[in-house]
Amino acid sequence: MALIVQKYGGTSMGSPERIKNVAKRVARWKAQGHQIVVVVSAMSGETNRLIGLAREIQATPDPRELDVMVSTGEQVTIALLAMALKSIGVDAKSYTGAQVRILTDSSHTKARILDIEEKNMRADLDAGKVIIVAGFQGVDENGAITTLGRGGSDTTGVALAAALKADECQIYTDVDGVYTTDPRIVPEAKKLEQITFEEMLEMASLGSKVLQIRSVEFAGKYKVKLRVLSSFEEEGKETNGTLITLEEDSTMEQPIISGIAFNRDEAKLTVLGVPDKPGIAYQILGPISEANIDVDMIIQNVGHDGTTDFSFTVNRGEYARAKKILEDSVQKHVGARNVIGDEKICKVSAVGVGMRSHPGIASQMFRTLAEEGINIQMISTSEIKISVVVDEKYLELAVRVLHKSFGLDQ
Amino acid sequence: MALIVQKYGGTSMGSPERIKNVAKRVARWKAQGHQIVVVVSAMSGETNRLIGLAREIQATPDPRELDVMVSTGEQVTIALLAMALKSIGVDAKSYTGAQVRILTDSSHTKARILDIEEKNMRADLDAGKVIIVAGFQGVDENGAITTLGRGGSDTTGVALAAALKADECQIYTDVDGVYTTDPRIVPEAKKLEQITFEEMLEMASLGSKVLQIRSVEFAGKYKVKLRVLSSFEEEGKETNGTLITLEEDSTMEQPIISGIAFNRDEAKLTVLGVPDKPGIAYQILGPISEANIDVDMIIQNVGHDGTTDFSFTVNRGEYARAKKILEDSVQKHVGARNVIGDEKICKVSAVGVGMRSHPGIASQMFRTLAEEGINIQMISTSEIKISVVVDEKYLELAVRVLHKSFGLDQ
Repeated sequence: MALIVQKYGGTSMGSPERIKNVAKRVARWKAQGHQIVVVVSAMSGETNRLIGLAREIQATPDPRELDVMVSTGEQVTIALLAMALKSIGVDAKSYTGAQVRILTDSSHTKARILDIEEKNMRADLDAGKVIIVAGFQGVDENGAITTLGRGGSDTTGVALAAALKADECQIYTDVDGVYTTDPRIVPEAKKLEQITFEEMLEMASLGSKVLQIRSVEFAGKYKVKLRVLSSFEEEGKETNGTLITLEEDSTMEQPIISGIAFNRDEAKLTVLGVPDKPGIAYQILGPISEANIDVDMIIQNVGHDGTTDFSFTVNRGEYARAKKILEDSVQKHVGARNVIGDEKICKVSAVGVGMRSHPGIASQMFRTLAEEGINIQMISTSEIKISVVVDEKYLELAVRVLHKSFGLDQ
Repeated sequence: MALIVQKYGGTSMGSPERIKNVAKRVARWKAQGHQIVVVVSAMSGETNRLIGLAREIQATPDPRELDVMVSTGEQVTIALLAMALKSIGVDAKSYTGAQVRILTDSSHTKARILDIEEKNMRADLDAGKVIIVAGFQGVDENGAITTLGRGGSDTTGVALAAALKADECQIYTDVDGVYTTDPRIVPEAKKLEQITFEEMLEMASLGSKVLQIRSVEFAGKYKVKLRVLSSFEEEGKETNGTLITLEEDSTMEQPIISGIAFNRDEAKLTVLGVPDKPGIAYQILGPISEANIDVDMIIQNVGHDGTTDFSFTVNRGEYARAKKILEDSVQKHVGARNVIGDEKICKVSAVGVGMRSHPGIASQMFRTLAEEGINIQMISTSEIKISVVVDEKYLELAVRVLHKSFGLDQ
């Protein structure tokens, strides 16, 4: 008998029919003798509907009151799933965040979990009940309802698994696991049996948006065994999804590269002829950060003739705003020669813990791209990832040849 | 400075525009220096939408989980009204039933209020905040969410007024007060400045559905000054509505009759030739009650020749079912001669505390109807009410002539 936390997202809870399917799946796990805690999101579209309603009343809705309101989305689905389970003879009980007592700080709309009371849940689990907890929400020490921000239901699932010392936290989504790359681009992409937290973080932040980064960090920190599964697989045809582990796989066949991630939503900006002196990076990125624009890659090469070129990438939607800031406030101030940029770029990354012990991965990657005539515009590396920026038109080609070159389609 | 509890129903909260209007009204009362507690219902239609969703999952939804779900309707409107107030510069704070701690018993979907904690609300009121409380909901001693049943928001308003010892509980509806009768039938109907709780109970149960009976009983019990007002009157054109008082009006002009109520949704059934012996009423009405059919008037006259006729009225929608029960299970069992009935009847009542001290009201009523050739089929009286059943076609005529006869149009 194991204690399993399952999390179902908004798509899985999207209609009465789908909720009944979730109930059947939960019932099958329960019938195997496991103790089950289910975390659910609001029905897809509901959170946006509520936020829209709030904005009709107040252009920038009061954060405390917005939390009171949007938390109702999950309050509806916990009740519906409890009913669906009861209607097929499974004893179940719903819990709001406040009823569990998922204690958070008071940062409305983006609260952080501080503590989880497990006493009541434990008693109900021991009495044979399936526990259904509203994701995404908690309560502060004054009893005010809080929410964890978008995607917070994954975090609720992981936090509950940590608090209850669950054997596994299963995240059900509309994909059946983590793939070596996007199967829509490379049909030969393979599902990974397992992946490390570090790799998952790199994959997720690079656009393989299967799990919320925050929940992965959380799972890594509290050593929660996390598994990504599909909620749309038919009975008898379920697969094991992808397990996200703390330890690197020690089997012989460990791949050096686990996957090829990519992001086509980026744009690059370069400040040319910047005086090569201390403090220049801050003078360039300070105003960007103050404008609340997230920066992804940052590249500065060694200078010559006392000047250097400074490049970084931003989300494509922020490109125009970032360029204007550089032109209006930065160029003259730092004494740069010019500001140039390109919206039509993409980022392609090879991710794998194996590259730590295998030098030569970078050169294999560059050679593979060169053989296809793909020019590399920027390069950035971390311990377990090599990212390149290339012209957007090469995205599919680059992903495909790298996937093949690193033997991921075998 | 007074402490005022205001209650707004689903129609008043029916759209963002209407919620903004409620906020403006609350702001005007606040600007007069009063402390304000507002109780709100869900947006009109929302509770039914949620119940419909629940029924798609479970034919008879689990009561505990249904309460978790339908209580979200008011949780949304408290937040919206708080936002609307903040957006016009009025400090406001929302409270769910659990956050106030409106303690109820555990009878889900029809819970009764046991206690209300006033500490937190009092602190916020003293800090100058408008308090907005979700109507219709509470929490039991285990922390489970409960609801008070349909119309429970009126009860929440009255209960809060009692707990906080408010100076007045104002119930805002889509009518501007209680009238001597329905103005759609008698254009000369007058709005009553005040009415006693007892009269209001008789008026309400007879079809003048302005207030929930339960909240009127509650207000009478806890001596809460209750006022019915319109939430649709324009600024500067507000009237005082109708005050529902504990004491009878002691002014000279006290009317004997306060109003003419009526109900056209009734049907009558008569069991003819029933043996006139003890236990017969129970033998007739027992099976009706077991079938969950509510009985309104019950008439049994003195018998002759050892038999009597037994009549009662039911809601017209239950007529066929009730008649079948009488024919199938009752007639033979009690040895009655026959079962007859009539769906085309209505009930008309004169209500007024003044009739206690004025004999002759009944005969004036019967004479007035006789002068118009209206035959009276059944008569039932209480301390402050005389009801007659007449052919449905006479409803408007009977109401009009009685309204005039008792001087209500002056």
